[in-house]
Amino acid sequence: MTDQSSTAAARSPSGDPYLLTPGPLTTSLTVKKAMLHDYGSRDATFIDLNARILERLVGIVNGAGRYVTVPLQGSGTFVVEAMIGVFVPADGKLLILVNGAYGKRIAKICDYYGRSYLVQESAEDVPVDTAQLDATLEADSAITHVAVVHCETTSGILNPILEVSQIVARHRRSLLIDSMSAFGALPLDSTEIEFDAVVASSNKCLEGAPGVGFCVARESALEKTEGNSPSLVLDLYDQWRAMQKNRQWRFTPPTHVLLAFDQALNEYEEEGGVAGRGGRYRANCDVLVAGMREMGFTTLLPDHLQAPIIITFHMPSNPEFDFNAFYDGLKNQGYVIYPGKLTVADSFRMGCIGRLDQQHMRAALGAVRSMLDQFGIERVDALK
Amino acid sequence: MTDQSSTAAARSPSGDPYLLTPGPLTTSLTVKKAMLHDYGSRDATFIDLNARILERLVGIVNGAGRYVTVPLQGSGTFVVEAMIGVFVPADGKLLILVNGAYGKRIAKICDYYGRSYLVQESAEDVPVDTAQLDATLEADSAITHVAVVHCETTSGILNPILEVSQIVARHRRSLLIDSMSAFGALPLDSTEIEFDAVVASSNKCLEGAPGVGFCVARESALEKTEGNSPSLVLDLYDQWRAMQKNRQWRFTPPTHVLLAFDQALNEYEEEGGVAGRGGRYRANCDVLVAGMREMGFTTLLPDHLQAPIIITFHMPSNPEFDFNAFYDGLKNQGYVIYPGKLTVADSFRMGCIGRLDQQHMRAALGAVRSMLDQFGIERVDALK
Repeated sequence: MTDQSSTAAARSPSGDPYLLTPGPLTTSLTVKKAMLHDYGSRDATFIDLNARILERLVGIVNGAGRYVTVPLQGSGTFVVEAMIGVFVPADGKLLILVNGAYGKRIAKICDYYGRSYLVQESAEDVPVDTAQLDATLEADSAITHVAVVHCETTSGILNPILEVSQIVARHRRSLLIDSMSAFGALPLDSTEIEFDAVVASSNKCLEGAPGVGFCVARESALEKTEGNSPSLVLDLYDQWRAMQKNRQWRFTPPTHVLLAFDQALNEYEEEGGVAGRGGRYRANCDVLVAGMREMGFTTLLPDHLQAPIIITFHMPSNPEFDFNAFYDGLKNQGYVIYPGKLTVADSFRMGCIGRLDQQHMRAALGAVRSMLDQFGIERVDALK
Repeated sequence: MTDQSSTAAARSPSGDPYLLTPGPLTTSLTVKKAMLHDYGSRDATFIDLNARILERLVGIVNGAGRYVTVPLQGSGTFVVEAMIGVFVPADGKLLILVNGAYGKRIAKICDYYGRSYLVQESAEDVPVDTAQLDATLEADSAITHVAVVHCETTSGILNPILEVSQIVARHRRSLLIDSMSAFGALPLDSTEIEFDAVVASSNKCLEGAPGVGFCVARESALEKTEGNSPSLVLDLYDQWRAMQKNRQWRFTPPTHVLLAFDQALNEYEEEGGVAGRGGRYRANCDVLVAGMREMGFTTLLPDHLQAPIIITFHMPSNPEFDFNAFYDGLKNQGYVIYPGKLTVADSFRMGCIGRLDQQHMRAALGAVRSMLDQFGIERVDALK
C-alpha cells in the first residue's frame, strides 16, 4: 500500500485528491452529476424535489408532525446566525456553551445583533460542563435560550447533547443546537433530545455540495418567532410562512446545489441513514486513529470524547518533521488534510467524513507512512 | 419550425427545457461540467480561482485600482441586503428609487435594519424620475445614499443609470446600484458612472450557477464601512479585510458554484465581454419582440425603455387564450416562460438571457405559434 500510494497519487472518481477535512468534502460522482441540469426555481419538479428534501431532514431527527425544516442559502454560519436571530427575541438572553471556535462564533453573532448573552466556556479538549450549566440556569432566570455545538470541529470533540437537553428542558428554557458537523452521522432523535431548533448544512455528513443550510425547528416554537429576525434574507420565520403558501423559496435558490442535495439524501438513505452513515465514519475514525497511533501520533482527545468526524493530532516534536512538507506531500499523494485551529496545543486535523471508507483511510495512512520515511522518521514523538 | 417544435420538444444540451426566465437560467454544459470536482476551500488552486473571479468582476466595471470585489454566499438579495447594511450607516438616510418589486425590497431591508429611508416611487412602466431625484436631494440634506435598480426585472425596464449617477454625484451623495439582472450585459463603466457599490450575482447575465453574489465597491468608500454591518455573515467589510489577509472566504464557500462561475467568466470573455454578451441578448430581444408582435402580442414597454433582459407582454384578451395551458404547452415543447409580477397590468414575461441565441428565440416563437394554433387564435388581441 505504501509503495502504491507513493508512486501514483490517489484520486477520487472525479480525479480530485481526497478531502480529509471538515468540509467541503469529497462527494460521490453521482451527487456531482446531479448538478448537470438547469431547473427554473418555479418548476414543479424542482418544487417537489425541495419538499422531499425538507421532509427527509425532519425524518432524520424523527420529528414528523412536530418539526419542520426551513432551508437557507449560504454556508452553515448563515443558518447559525439565522437561528440565533429568529429564535432569540430582542428581550431574550442566550447562554452559549463554548469549547471552540464555533461556540465563540455564536457569541460574535450576538454582538452583531445586540442580543444579551452569557458565555460558559470550557477548554477546547473538555466537553461543555453540564453541572455548571445546571447551576447557571438555576441562578439566572433571565436566560431564555441555550446554544450548544453538537460536535466542535475545532477539536472534533463530542458534546453531551443529551444531558444538556435534559438540563435545559428541566429548567424550561429553549435549546438551540449547532449540529453542523454531526447532523446525519450522530443520532439526534427529537423524541429523546428536546430542542427547539437545530441547524446543519448540505455539505457535511449528508455529503452534498456546499451552498445550502437548514434549520429543523419545532413548529410550536417557530410559530412564536414572527418579527424577531433582524435580517430579511435570514428570516427563517418568513421563509417558512412563504413556503407554506407556495412551496417556493423567497429568493433564488441554488438550484444545482439542491439537485445535488436530493441525490445525496438518496445515497444517505441507501446507506441506512444515521446508523449506516455514522457506522462508516466510526470505522473510518477507528482505522485512522489506530494507524496513526502505530506511527507514534497522539490524539488530542481520549477516545470516549472523540466524535467520528474530525480528529485532532498533536504536532510531532521530531525536528525532522516539517508540517508544510507533510501537508504538501500528502496532497501530492492525493490526500488533503487540515491545519489545526487550537489555542491549547500545536496540532493538525484529519477528517474522516465524506465519500470515504476504510480503504481510503488505509491508503491515507500509507501516504503518511511514506512522508515519515521521507523525513527519516521511524516513529514520531508527540505529546501524550 | 412550428411543425418541428410541436412534434419533438426542444431540449438544451443537458436535456432540459430552455429557461426563458429572469433566472435561474440555462447555462452552458461546460459551465455545469465545471462543477464535477470537489475542492477544499483552502486549496491553493481554488484560492487562485477565487482571486481570478474577483479581479475579472472589477474589470467588467473598468475599475482596476479603484474598485474591489467582495463575494457573498447566497442569492442576489443576500448581497443587496449586505450592501445596504454595510454602506448605509445607522445614522445615514437612504433614498430609494422604486419602480418595481426589487426597489420595494430594498425598502423592506431598511425596515428590518431600522435604517432611515425615503422612497421615490414611479409606476412600473416608467423609468425612475431624475428631475424629482434632483429636487429631493436638493431639499433633503439628511439623505446620505441613493439606491437604484439598474434593470427592474419586474417589468424589464432600463433605468437611466447614467443620469441618476450624475445627479447623485453633483449632490455629493453616495450611489448604490442593484444591477442584478443587468450586470455584464449592459455597460456599467465606473469611469463614466460614479457609484460606491454595485451588486449582482453569478447567475444572471454572467451565466453561472446560482449561489453566489458579489459587491463591486469603491475601495475608498468600503474602507469607511467598518462596524456598520448589522449582520456577521453579511458583513462585506469584514469579508473584504479577511480576504486581504489570507485570500480565503470567512465561511465555507459554495465551491462547486465558484468553479462554474470561473468557467462562466471564461466563456463571457470569449464572447467579447459586455459588448458580445449584451449584443447577443439585444439580438435575442429584437427577434423575440418582433416575432411576438407579428402574432399580435404587445409589450408593456416602448422599445427605448426595454432592457434586453426580460420582456413583459400584455396578457391577450382573446377568450380562447388560456395562460395556464399556454405556459404548460410551451414548457412541454421545451420553453419555460415566466408569470407576470406587475400591479399595473395583467401580463407574462419572457427572458432572453442565459445560454440562448436567436435560433432559440425563433424556435420559442414557433412554440408560441403552435399554442395559438391549438387555441384556434390567428392573431391575439392585446392592450396597446
